[in-house]
Amino acid sequence: MLPLPKKYFLTAASSEGNTSLTAFDGALLNARVGNTNLLRVSSILPPGCEFDPELKIPSGSLLPIAYGSITSSEPGVIISAAVAVGIKKDSFGVIMEFSGKCSKKEAEEKVVKMVEEAFAMRNLELEEVKVAACEHTVENIGCAFAAVPLWY
Amino acid sequence: MLPLPKKYFLTAASSEGNTSLTAFDGALLNARVGNTNLLRVSSILPPGCEFDPELKIPSGSLLPIAYGSITSSEPGVIISAAVAVGIKKDSFGVIMEFSGKCSKKEAEEKVVKMVEEAFAMRNLELEEVKVAACEHTVENIGCAFAAVPLWY
Amino acid sequence: MLPLPKKYFLTAASSEGNTSLTAFDGALLNARVGNTNLLRVSSILPPGCEFDPELKIPSGSLLPIAYGSITSSEPGVIISAAVAVGIKKDSFGVIMEFSGKCSKKEAEEKVVKMVEEAFAMRNLELEEVKVAACEHTVENIGCAFAAVPLWY
Repeated sequence: MLPLPKKYFLTAASSEGNTSLTAFDGALLNARVGNTNLLRVSSILPPGCEFDPELKIPSGSLLPIAYGSITSSEPGVIISAAVAVGIKKDSFGVIMEFSGKCSKKEAEEKVVKMVEEAFAMRNLELEEVKVAACEHTVENIGCAFAAVPLWY
Repeated sequence: MLPLPKKYFLTAASSEGNTSLTAFDGALLNARVGNTNLLRVSSILPPGCEFDPELKIPSGSLLPIAYGSITSSEPGVIISAAVAVGIKKDSFGVIMEFSGKCSKKEAEEKVVKMVEEAFAMRNLELEEVKVAACEHTVENIGCAFAAVPLWY
Repeated sequence: MLPLPKKYFLTAASSEGNTSLTAFDGALLNARVGNTNLLRVSSILPPGCEFDPELKIPSGSLLPIAYGSITSSEPGVIISAAVAVGIKKDSFGVIMEFSGKCSKKEAEEKVVKMVEEAFAMRNLELEEVKVAACEHTVENIGCAFAAVPLWY
């Protein structure tokens, strides 16, 4: 089977670009995952996976990652992305992602509610929630990105 | 290289949620893949991959999976998702996914036709088709999900 | 961790199909990746990854791949997809994807500009760009696909 990730961190950042994809690329760079190969996953924190905010991912790595992102080309619009990790000791956790045309605060509140709902659906007690979010006012083409990279 | 999956099953289920993502999360739970990290693939049954309907996937696993899903927030709308696996002995197989605002029966018929087309394109004789599908009438925010998890 | 890809090639092809997904499937077949499980990545050429245009991917493999694609059901419309790999010796590279309702030439020009922007963002000198692109005039349901498969 594919190896189970052992470490994770949360990150969020934004960028402008000349195209949607290069704005996304810039946001990844600002979020410290820009030189990796994102393998998007949906989206469980493996049991025993440890929080390591100083993780550095080697260039080119295949990086399992849960993320939310939004790109907009409407100047002046505020866009936000947020991720939340719901944690329970000795259990797996749940990761939720949200992005939209709203404030960082609103994105954070929504993503935390999503984690609460995910824990309630599983009859799991939610002991801790970690959140990362960012807000961006579009100049030309902007991207807001929030992620939970899973690593080894 | 990444290890070749050895086992598979078919699954389909639906759920309501307070958001699109939590409705999707609930559908995954009902489909017995809810506590895993879905790695979406497109979508071949590896040669020698065995059908194992009792498979249990460990929490947090990186799970290669072919799936179709649809989320709707229009109360009263009927949504369906279906997957089909086209099988030929001593060959790889082909997985097709379909989702839409239609009945389960229509989704099943469409996805089977897609497998037939995929086999015809490859000049492969289609010996067997397995199908899984579900139908859901949206209350507030609903998701229908059908998948072929590939495992080890 | 997941093993780092060691080889790559560029490919682009198109197809008609009876549905969007089977048109996509046909394009994958024409692009020589049709019997594999695409694991979409975003999108760095790992350091030391070697160009191997004759690569053959075993059936059913989990294949990390960066790609752009577009499907259209408007008869007569011209669709194109392009990928570009920006290369610098002794460094990772950057892969960009583009697809749209435009000519192959326009898609190629755009995707090369995106690679140039990605290198500029990283203050990396761009030594070489490889491009693959295709153009397709839709008959009923058509798909244009361009990709950089990463392999071992």
